[in-house]
Amino acid sequence: MSVMASATLGQGNALDSLIALVAEDLGQVNETIIRRMYSPVSLIPQLAGHLIAAGGKRLRPVLTLATARLCGYGGGDRHVKLATCIEFIHTATLLHDDVVDRSSLRRGEPSANALWGNKASVLVGDFLFSRSFELMVEDGDLPVLAILSRTSSIIAEGEVLQLLTTNNTKTTEEEYLKVIHAKTATLFAAASQLGPVLASRPQAEEAALESYGFNLGMAFQLVDDVLDYSARQEKLGKTIGDDFRDGKITLPVILGFAAADDEEQVFWRRTLETLDQTEADLRRALELLRKYNCLDETMRRARAYGDAARTALLFFPDSPMRRALLDVITFCIERAY
Amino acid sequence: MSVMASATLGQGNALDSLIALVAEDLGQVNETIIRRMYSPVSLIPQLAGHLIAAGGKRLRPVLTLATARLCGYGGGDRHVKLATCIEFIHTATLLHDDVVDRSSLRRGEPSANALWGNKASVLVGDFLFSRSFELMVEDGDLPVLAILSRTSSIIAEGEVLQLLTTNNTKTTEEEYLKVIHAKTATLFAAASQLGPVLASRPQAEEAALESYGFNLGMAFQLVDDVLDYSARQEKLGKTIGDDFRDGKITLPVILGFAAADDEEQVFWRRTLETLDQTEADLRRALELLRKYNCLDETMRRARAYGDAARTALLFFPDSPMRRALLDVITFCIERAY
Repeated sequence: MSVMASATLGQGNALDSLIALVAEDLGQVNETIIRRMYSPVSLIPQLAGHLIAAGGKRLRPVLTLATARLCGYGGGDRHVKLATCIEFIHTATLLHDDVVDRSSLRRGEPSANALWGNKASVLVGDFLFSRSFELMVEDGDLPVLAILSRTSSIIAEGEVLQLLTTNNTKTTEEEYLKVIHAKTATLFAAASQLGPVLASRPQAEEAALESYGFNLGMAFQLVDDVLDYSARQEKLGKTIGDDFRDGKITLPVILGFAAADDEEQVFWRRTLETLDQTEADLRRALELLRKYNCLDETMRRARAYGDAARTALLFFPDSPMRRALLDVITFCIERAY
Repeated sequence: MSVMASATLGQGNALDSLIALVAEDLGQVNETIIRRMYSPVSLIPQLAGHLIAAGGKRLRPVLTLATARLCGYGGGDRHVKLATCIEFIHTATLLHDDVVDRSSLRRGEPSANALWGNKASVLVGDFLFSRSFELMVEDGDLPVLAILSRTSSIIAEGEVLQLLTTNNTKTTEEEYLKVIHAKTATLFAAASQLGPVLASRPQAEEAALESYGFNLGMAFQLVDDVLDYSARQEKLGKTIGDDFRDGKITLPVILGFAAADDEEQVFWRRTLETLDQTEADLRRALELLRKYNCLDETMRRARAYGDAARTALLFFPDSPMRRALLDVITFCIERAY
């Protein structure tokens, strides 16, 4: 299994310095991931490995490792175990997120549920959730357990909320922000908050790094939603339009619908609400998003969250680790271009 | 919502005395369930309530309440919170268990996933898992957290193992027992073990009640598997043959397959492996199970587990609570007739 090889966050980008700074810890996280996703029921490591090994950016666990070091944590391997927890929660969420109803089959890469079926994805996701829970209990620190159990609840709530906005063109920007806050930014926030908690740093440092993680997560998700409609993504040979085909309501579409004339609103409702659409409709959608600058507008908001993440980090004195964490913000935003 | 009304375990059966003994605590569990499954995302309490309110025997949480009282626990409401945890884990498992792949649609009652879709069932299940986890963390006792996190992992592993035995007529009795140990008996064992843990009783009492719960759970599941092919079940107007239609390999079928002649083996393989079957085939299956006494044989094993559960309870002096817990064994087995 090439978990080690694929665990790097990519080369020649703004993440390199951060990866270099936590390389040893990240190696331990990768070993812990493999050891702790083991089960004699071989389908479990097989299916979990498919997702964890493939294309893992490891961004969330890296945040735990990096904030722990930024805050001077040095007393053991708790950061490694908890970074593994974070990755397991993330992977379990992905597995459950990919469970599709018959009405919304996903195109592009074969997902775990396409390869092994819905039910296996659900159950292996449950296994990873449980394993992450076991890891936390082994850590045994109640404040850590409180952060992570609360985080799990909020993520689950956010996922249900997202389900309710799907196919609903009446979704407001506020509702959308609530969804991505819960389903994405909360885990980034928890991952970053664990560092100061492990290092027993004052509440103000915890709050600063929680804010860093939250704002980074918001920016990350907004850029993700832009990428699904992005020419750059298409140039790289990746599929675009997955969100469109699923009728997922993301910010670009919300802005496009708000600006639309009557005929265009009919178009959005037909394609996103009833999913009555063809590939030509995806082209039309891209045109409309361009016409009203919806992708640029979404990026403008992503940059604003990025700025807030930057400000939160200024609470800490300059250091190579702080600079690397600032670079992560740049990475999250620049990948759109 | 009629959670309170439906929370009784039925009338005129061997469970009445136990219910009466924990009635007040059970009322508190029902209130806690409603309060803690609340979310502003209204689909969550709606979907969770569908399952929790309907037909809930509350057998597992009752075990926690009863063993806590048997062991003299009296210091607060920890048993109520942890009984709620147990019910949430059980409900989440049911929700995820009902997620179907297109190849195996379930007949009979409309399940939550039939009403709201696979994805909603998965995500609300995740929410209940997370809530149960939050409740445990609020309790804050590490030995309790260790029991429950381990239990969750084992259940998830057992569910995956069950998936792998589905449609596989080569499944052995040993493999089947491993599946029901993990997916059913472990939660019964944990629910019963929590009582002495809460009351800080010696390890021997913990072991005795864990053994009681484990053996009760094994008996319960074996009887469940018999009921799916039982004439009594059919008389009560309930559907039979769900396991058969799904190609689930339970002990009656394993015994039937082991005893089968060549032609009968072809029949089992066609109906259970390829799911090429009609209602007439269900009749044939029932005939074959009768021919080789497979249901009686399964019940014989269930009674052996019941006897072991009874023996474990003899560790405790006679009391109304012990008598009521003995009655539960009778209830679990007698419902087959």
